[in-house]
Amino acid sequence: MLDLPGYPASDLRYLPREQVVAALDEVDCVEVTAQALRRHALGSTILPDEAYLPWQTPDGHSARSLGMPGAIRTDSGLDLGLKVINASLGNPDRGLARSQGLLMMFDPETAYPVCVMESAYISALRTAAVTAVSAQRLRTDPVGHLAVLGCGTLARAHLRLLPAVSDKLQTITLYDLDRSRAEALADALRADPDTADLTVRVEDSARACVDGADLVVTVTVTTEGYLAPEWFAPGALIAHVSLDDVLPEVVAAAGLVVVDDWGLVSHDDRRLLGRMWRAGTLRAPDGGYRPDATPDPTAAQVHTTLGDVLADRHPGRAEPGRLVLSNPFGMSILDVALGARVAAYAEEHDLGLRIPR
Amino acid sequence: MLDLPGYPASDLRYLPREQVVAALDEVDCVEVTAQALRRHALGSTILPDEAYLPWQTPDGHSARSLGMPGAIRTDSGLDLGLKVINASLGNPDRGLARSQGLLMMFDPETAYPVCVMESAYISALRTAAVTAVSAQRLRTDPVGHLAVLGCGTLARAHLRLLPAVSDKLQTITLYDLDRSRAEALADALRADPDTADLTVRVEDSARACVDGADLVVTVTVTTEGYLAPEWFAPGALIAHVSLDDVLPEVVAAAGLVVVDDWGLVSHDDRRLLGRMWRAGTLRAPDGGYRPDATPDPTAAQVHTTLGDVLADRHPGRAEPGRLVLSNPFGMSILDVALGARVAAYAEEHDLGLRIPR
Repeated sequence: MLDLPGYPASDLRYLPREQVVAALDEVDCVEVTAQALRRHALGSTILPDEAYLPWQTPDGHSARSLGMPGAIRTDSGLDLGLKVINASLGNPDRGLARSQGLLMMFDPETAYPVCVMESAYISALRTAAVTAVSAQRLRTDPVGHLAVLGCGTLARAHLRLLPAVSDKLQTITLYDLDRSRAEALADALRADPDTADLTVRVEDSARACVDGADLVVTVTVTTEGYLAPEWFAPGALIAHVSLDDVLPEVVAAAGLVVVDDWGLVSHDDRRLLGRMWRAGTLRAPDGGYRPDATPDPTAAQVHTTLGDVLADRHPGRAEPGRLVLSNPFGMSILDVALGARVAAYAEEHDLGLRIPR
Repeated sequence: MLDLPGYPASDLRYLPREQVVAALDEVDCVEVTAQALRRHALGSTILPDEAYLPWQTPDGHSARSLGMPGAIRTDSGLDLGLKVINASLGNPDRGLARSQGLLMMFDPETAYPVCVMESAYISALRTAAVTAVSAQRLRTDPVGHLAVLGCGTLARAHLRLLPAVSDKLQTITLYDLDRSRAEALADALRADPDTADLTVRVEDSARACVDGADLVVTVTVTTEGYLAPEWFAPGALIAHVSLDDVLPEVVAAAGLVVVDDWGLVSHDDRRLLGRMWRAGTLRAPDGGYRPDATPDPTAAQVHTTLGDVLADRHPGRAEPGRLVLSNPFGMSILDVALGARVAAYAEEHDLGLRIPR
């Protein structure tokens, strides 16, 4: 039978999770993320719609695969990649992490994959890095009290990055529907030299957890809002990572609502802000309503993007005492930005495995 | 710093191209493809929109990455995967294959990737397999004269599969804008025991190439039509793989127009059939016009899908003597169907590499 043309003998580099962790330890995730957000605001990125495959597992759990490509033009060239990140809600019951996947980095000229790496670790770290950037740019005061709702992988990623960002941090409060998860995380924080000096408390309710906090991070799997505006301390920053935790009244009460990308948020019809946009109870950053929605004169508003704040196009400040809501949908370009640094570090130090094409 | 939870110690299986070729040699690609097409018609698949990242390479060529997830319910369970297939138009000038990528297969319960393999080979073979299925089901007579327009990787994939499908094949005609590519392919066919007994001719024009052929396969990179209806033999089957080779008059003249998925074809605005649908010069399989198009009373029509023909919902026959046009947009579920077989074979024979997560 006829042969098909092959490929050059160059290998692919493959990085298992352990090597991704090692490489990312050498990267300033918060700074790389801030730079990528800024480049996005300045139009130096390509952020296509993601591919979304949902299914029911044989055991009856919801599972999904996301395929998220992205590109960023940098000073030295073009960073290109595609993140695949899958999740099954049945995994935690099996003692498995909910998500896993692979991030591929591409050669800008041949388009061939050149480096493949485990993607869930990068994905968690870049999500936490966006919260860290928000804490730096959307607050005037450093964070003294951090509240974390949900105590899974994303909580740990946040608690890995955030203590280094605020030198005034004194208190961490934790809440999870499964108290044992919160206790396990509290124990880990008390045992960790980076956080051993802090007060760490497990709370009995979400309300007790957010009470008095300067920064509230939601990293749950809820699809229904439960956080009311009067629960928060005046001027608190809410990093609404899991996207469905706050009630619509919180969005309406906030003095500043910031997203990562208005297109991503408004095109989505499953999460709170997308639903509000469809219902006419949320206005776009330009003040307009969705053309086919019935305008609600009391509608809340999205004010700006985090990238525009970083690019100094928006002050990123609310009136003193008013809530600030950051609602990051999640962008592949941040994974690509970090993946490019990881790939470069791996190349330089010959980390990982060389695998044939 | 706080650690994040890890994963079970189970490895990923990685299959480089060589092992994918070895495994696929043991799979009946045409039958697996026919079965997947049938399952698609019967509603046993999930075929999400693909993610599409286009860019210009530093050398000024067009490049793109496609992320294509898909799922098929089979007798034994659920086959799930995501194909990443990238291409740069600058590659052939460098002596490189235009496309490369990776196909990932997922565990239906945990959603974790379990097998990763080179995807361009599978991608080319499944494309050729669709043509083989079309030749079997959309023609009454076996193919005696096969014409191939474009002599790259996809041409080779077709000439790897098609000779086995028709025992009446006598003549192969080839055409390429770069005659040396056609000559090289002709030499390979003459040297291959499977095709050494056939008459193989390189032609000077596309018109001479298709003249008298029963089956015409277009595997070019053109974005502009050039094939006129009067060039074809009466009753010829045109496998319009590259999607932009025939003129609109060919679609109008065809007695049977078959697609793989009407949603994929009609949502696309770059290729011929999608453009005709937008312009009101093509009707859907149900006979209707696009709602916002100005209906053209002389409009051509898409009659059915290949899956519906395979599921015996449509006879798949044109009036004798009239052209038949098969216009397969390309579906990830076919890659997933073949990938599942490759992964199973690799598992059974312990092919490829075990790489840590």
